[in-house]
Amino acid sequence: MTITAESLRHRPLIFVLRALATGEVSSQALTTAFLEAIARDAALNAWTWVDQEGALEAARQSDARRASGAPLGRLDGVPLAIKDNIDVAGMPTTVGLPGRRGRRAENDAHIVSRLRGAGAVLLGKTNLDEATLGTVGRNAHYGDVGNPFLPGRVSGGSSAGSAAAVAAGHAVAALGSDTLGSVRIPAAFCGVIGFKPGFGELSCRGMAPSLRRLDCPGILARQVQDIAPLLQTMAGYDAADPRSRRRRVALALPDWDPSCLRVGVLADAAAAGAEPAVASAFQSAVQRASGLFGQAGAIHFDLNELEVVATRRAALLMMEAELLAAHEPDLGGASEQVLTMLAFAQKKSASDYARADLRLDQHVVRVRQMFERFDVLILPVAPLLPPATDAPEPSTLADFTALASLAGCPALSLPLEQGTGLQLVGLPGSDLRLLELGTVLAAVIEAEGQPG
Amino acid sequence: MTITAESLRHRPLIFVLRALATGEVSSQALTTAFLEAIARDAALNAWTWVDQEGALEAARQSDARRASGAPLGRLDGVPLAIKDNIDVAGMPTTVGLPGRRGRRAENDAHIVSRLRGAGAVLLGKTNLDEATLGTVGRNAHYGDVGNPFLPGRVSGGSSAGSAAAVAAGHAVAALGSDTLGSVRIPAAFCGVIGFKPGFGELSCRGMAPSLRRLDCPGILARQVQDIAPLLQTMAGYDAADPRSRRRRVALALPDWDPSCLRVGVLADAAAAGAEPAVASAFQSAVQRASGLFGQAGAIHFDLNELEVVATRRAALLMMEAELLAAHEPDLGGASEQVLTMLAFAQKKSASDYARADLRLDQHVVRVRQMFERFDVLILPVAPLLPPATDAPEPSTLADFTALASLAGCPALSLPLEQGTGLQLVGLPGSDLRLLELGTVLAAVIEAEGQPG
Repeated sequence: MTITAESLRHRPLIFVLRALATGEVSSQALTTAFLEAIARDAALNAWTWVDQEGALEAARQSDARRASGAPLGRLDGVPLAIKDNIDVAGMPTTVGLPGRRGRRAENDAHIVSRLRGAGAVLLGKTNLDEATLGTVGRNAHYGDVGNPFLPGRVSGGSSAGSAAAVAAGHAVAALGSDTLGSVRIPAAFCGVIGFKPGFGELSCRGMAPSLRRLDCPGILARQVQDIAPLLQTMAGYDAADPRSRRRRVALALPDWDPSCLRVGVLADAAAAGAEPAVASAFQSAVQRASGLFGQAGAIHFDLNELEVVATRRAALLMMEAELLAAHEPDLGGASEQVLTMLAFAQKKSASDYARADLRLDQHVVRVRQMFERFDVLILPVAPLLPPATDAPEPSTLADFTALASLAGCPALSLPLEQGTGLQLVGLPGSDLRLLELGTVLAAVIEAEGQPG
Repeated sequence: MTITAESLRHRPLIFVLRALATGEVSSQALTTAFLEAIARDAALNAWTWVDQEGALEAARQSDARRASGAPLGRLDGVPLAIKDNIDVAGMPTTVGLPGRRGRRAENDAHIVSRLRGAGAVLLGKTNLDEATLGTVGRNAHYGDVGNPFLPGRVSGGSSAGSAAAVAAGHAVAALGSDTLGSVRIPAAFCGVIGFKPGFGELSCRGMAPSLRRLDCPGILARQVQDIAPLLQTMAGYDAADPRSRRRRVALALPDWDPSCLRVGVLADAAAAGAEPAVASAFQSAVQRASGLFGQAGAIHFDLNELEVVATRRAALLMMEAELLAAHEPDLGGASEQVLTMLAFAQKKSASDYARADLRLDQHVVRVRQMFERFDVLILPVAPLLPPATDAPEPSTLADFTALASLAGCPALSLPLEQGTGLQLVGLPGSDLRLLELGTVLAAVIEAEGQPG
């Protein structure tokens, strides 16, 4: 089979890198194919900004580097999408708000400068829930993001455009951001891979704050193996990000022994709030994966003990307070819904905030205690199937993803049928092990007929 | 000279350990000497609780271990004082509030259990500013803490009783806590050594929260060399403290090369707000120490660039909010002054809190940037001499100590004349290097006639 730029639109990063390396495709041809698809699919509303000229020029330079034998970056010539709350120099960073449309970022976010330094081609900025305050990808100013994987269903949010862009073949992979589930929910809904690194592994400099205590840039891609090269290109201490952690040794090695892996599996997904189709997809996936758990087998855990839902509500108050503090000058024209949520934070007191922050501390300890029994947790991504595009936004979509967010844990979401997903959660520092385990798990699940 | 228990009351930890090891003194004799001094000096109000019986029993057990040749802890038989916001099982933890007097702690704080495990004798709990909200050691419920080093002057706070206890020879060393300067200020005022470790090095489990983002347990002692054994007995990851950091390698080695140490010295202490006597004591100490700076010499830095004062005010709002959230049920009988401060936090909004928290993040980055030019910073501890006992509490006493607190840096205070102090600040992780440097610096300063 001949490799064409068009055929690579739906292939994982590793295939794209090989096709570029062998010369079977040029970055310019690939970039053009993506840009054409973006233009064709304008009705998806996946993008708030497309930098056709800049992307083609970057692709041309990459092809020239390759032709001349110059040193190449790890991602040289690979077209990527960036969520529109992360700065890319020369493009606006709207955060989904109308009031920020006119201002262009002067500098790349730290992680974007890393991608650019590795030779990546930056196609533009992807659409998101207004001010990141949502889980379904609706935006009154830049359009609701469609779901290319499940038309008629919402895309999930807030990294809606990033998930839709990967699913629709608009980019090889995309950056998102995940405060309480904003990478993993749209990834599952759109049938792609979503990864939220451990807190502090990626710099947040140049990413608009949602709740700095929890904010993590995240990665959306077509296959688990694509995550590690992107993560390692971007990871590292950034003195200019106050929450960035200096890591004195590398991330934990991805070692794990399947025969004695202690896997904690959500005991009763339905009792934890999952609707029947979600619970059944989850059970079926766990069944298929059970051979990997080894002698120890799966150990059940109960989500209620962790008080995730109450803690997520506390975090939401903190997020609203911080969004108001960060974006107050840019709220002109914001929707009534967003203004109402932010006004709530104005009515709550500073000691209410401190109480919420204390709840988050307590959650961290509960999760650490839980991980004394487990190496990895497995649970569904969202408790509900992707709602219909005209249905009201459910309030519970982040109930399963918040567990990892609130404790700063890395978490990986793998797509299952009907927009459901399987989530792997590990302790902080176990990012690479989680990806290794996810690769094996994805293969097992897919072998049984998972949509590709 | 014969070593008596009484003569050891004013000797550093290292002398005490030697005297215990050689059998020149028993822990019971030493403990008795301290208990008698505490009783004699009751007018100092240094203690809120003295556990005579428990201390003597612990001393007896230590002596028995030693006599029988049983394994000994690193601090076996050494009498210590604990600030009364840190739990010691069986004793109340008043935090200086009248409403908490009746309740006894069930468990030791993590750091206290480490001390007890190392064989230390716990004499009791030391007095502090009400709810830790003060810098002069006044307490309407448990009495104002006197200053044994400079009678007629305040002791400094909030670890007032811990500083006074060390200065008066009531204990070999003491635990305090330092959120914005609460160990270093009373240490300087009372003429003893004060050390605030880097954030997260010591567990805060079992310590009443003031502002969890900044809270550090601290150490007050007679000589710099006493700090490291106490620090290393207590240091380490504690999964039950959500802010405790897992350190994958040991603390940075205490290596430094005097010939190329980059020392940042506060350029103009008077311009930064120091009164003349403080500026002159500081200049004189820097002069005496300048031989240590090596070829690089001292490089001046400007405190105003760091916006410490404005950031300290932001932290104070957060602290008030958190104290209110943490202690609301125990505020019955609290003073009008404390209630007024906490009510202020009730009037401020959750987004005001988020704005303050953002200011702290910005300070972290400014300090990191400053440390690109320096290995260590040197500045005075407090901008003013210890105020007279009947003078109003100045609002600026923590202006110089807040720099390190707000950025999570370790900081060491060395006493100078008249209750002034020299402060060394290093980057997070440099605790041991700071102590090594402090040992040398203290020797140089003392050689020139520093009161012992």
